[in-house]
Amino acid sequence: MTRPRLASFHAEGADRYGVMTDRGMIDLWPRFRDRWASLQAVVEQGDLLELADLGEKYPVTYFENEITLLKPLASPEKIICVGVNYPDRNEEYKDGQEAPRFPSLFPRFARSFVAHGQPLVRPTASEQLDYEGEVVIVIGKGGRHIAEADALNHIAALSLCNEGTIRDWVRHAKFNVTQGKNFESSAAMGPWLIPFTDEAQIADIRLTTRVNGEVRQDDRTSRMIFSFRRLINYISTFTKLVPGDVIVTGTPTGAGARLDPPVWLKPGDVVEVEAEGIGILRNGVVDEAAQ
Amino acid sequence: MTRPRLASFHAEGADRYGVMTDRGMIDLWPRFRDRWASLQAVVEQGDLLELADLGEKYPVTYFENEITLLKPLASPEKIICVGVNYPDRNEEYKDGQEAPRFPSLFPRFARSFVAHGQPLVRPTASEQLDYEGEVVIVIGKGGRHIAEADALNHIAALSLCNEGTIRDWVRHAKFNVTQGKNFESSAAMGPWLIPFTDEAQIADIRLTTRVNGEVRQDDRTSRMIFSFRRLINYISTFTKLVPGDVIVTGTPTGAGARLDPPVWLKPGDVVEVEAEGIGILRNGVVDEAAQ
Repeated sequence: MTRPRLASFHAEGADRYGVMTDRGMIDLWPRFRDRWASLQAVVEQGDLLELADLGEKYPVTYFENEITLLKPLASPEKIICVGVNYPDRNEEYKDGQEAPRFPSLFPRFARSFVAHGQPLVRPTASEQLDYEGEVVIVIGKGGRHIAEADALNHIAALSLCNEGTIRDWVRHAKFNVTQGKNFESSAAMGPWLIPFTDEAQIADIRLTTRVNGEVRQDDRTSRMIFSFRRLINYISTFTKLVPGDVIVTGTPTGAGARLDPPVWLKPGDVVEVEAEGIGILRNGVVDEAAQ
Repeated sequence: MTRPRLASFHAEGADRYGVMTDRGMIDLWPRFRDRWASLQAVVEQGDLLELADLGEKYPVTYFENEITLLKPLASPEKIICVGVNYPDRNEEYKDGQEAPRFPSLFPRFARSFVAHGQPLVRPTASEQLDYEGEVVIVIGKGGRHIAEADALNHIAALSLCNEGTIRDWVRHAKFNVTQGKNFESSAAMGPWLIPFTDEAQIADIRLTTRVNGEVRQDDRTSRMIFSFRRLINYISTFTKLVPGDVIVTGTPTGAGARLDPPVWLKPGDVVEVEAEGIGILRNGVVDEAAQ
């Protein structure tokens, strides 16, 4: 079964949204812009499934080479990323500590992300740009103190993230990885949103990351230390989740920092993050100076 | 010299902005709402000084008891807080480490803050609600790679923060204080914005925090480990600062966690953060359950 792919994109001078099909993009923005100004508005109003259904009624508007994909959500209220969340990755840290009792969390600002197809930017401040492939959940129904049993009902959609990281800068401070996780355009999110309706979409899917075609990360969501349910439950203990909030759920072992010697991304590399049933997020790499 | 105090406030069913005077509030929103929808829009358009000048031309609209102050800026793109940034506070950690080379930074979501006069919320999840009085700078001119020599030209305004913290939750994870720093309504920002025009406004001002009238924190900004200039320079190395961004610049020694035994805030307490030339930020405390 192919699930609908809802995308934000730019074409003919305007930011639009629609349904991506194998034949091309169905542009829904001209028909529904008064009701939903953006895909983010669709999510915030709880209408993602309705938009997916509407897409089936209209013909393809653009061929794929006529559009530029944008980030699915331009400015979520919150983007919360989960650190070390796969078993072997915790061991990679080799600090003798047992698996953590609570997830490690850090926010990223929206401007640290680019869209599918846009290049990640290696900053002048460091050459240690690294990849981290991750599954993204988008909140559809807000709430506080959400029970694990009810948590999946709060997910509107799935997407992918290359949670690009500047490794030496995550260690600048005693605590907090903020600066190394928030370099301008150092990460990517997309290519689209897949509406979430069934736990089987995330319970045990394969997540892989390739650099120039070589598999570097390869694991399954069933092995996550903190499950999707637990993450929603835990995060909603301290903050109210709202529609459109994004949770980036952690990366498997195999980031470039853990290779011996470490291997960093460099201009010309192509990174692909793929998860079953969601898609492939593909990005090149450029130098900040070359922009 | 009394500097203009520009505030967001609620009165007669609408969110407004204006100039606070000793006689009351001059409501500028009805006159200028088409040009600036909010105080945030004023800052984003670089017009804060113009608004302050306009205020002098109109009479007082409301007595202080007729209005409710709101957070000066409802939803900054970024709120970046600085950890340990006063000398003695670094020593409080007693971990034998020297003063850090780079600032420790963590984002807070806007919804973790309440306005002046609104109660801080002690959550059901923990009784370890603690205060941290801090000086806030608001970015007026955006930029990346801002030089220290030019940094103060990027500040539009000053404000105050009680950077309320849930102490046990900042230690939940190996890294990152995110959850303990982002409890809903656990912190406060305000009461207003003071336009920034002169380095003397921040170079060596006294910053104090009182709990029920007792002084708990008392230091001067001249003793900050990372200066205002250095913070703007460092942060703009990794992210583009934009007008309306907020930097919360760190707290002196004397938080409740460092007392022996620790003393936490409890319902009925009143916390005041005061800085010379900026004002007093005052908040009570309530229990989450009691809301």
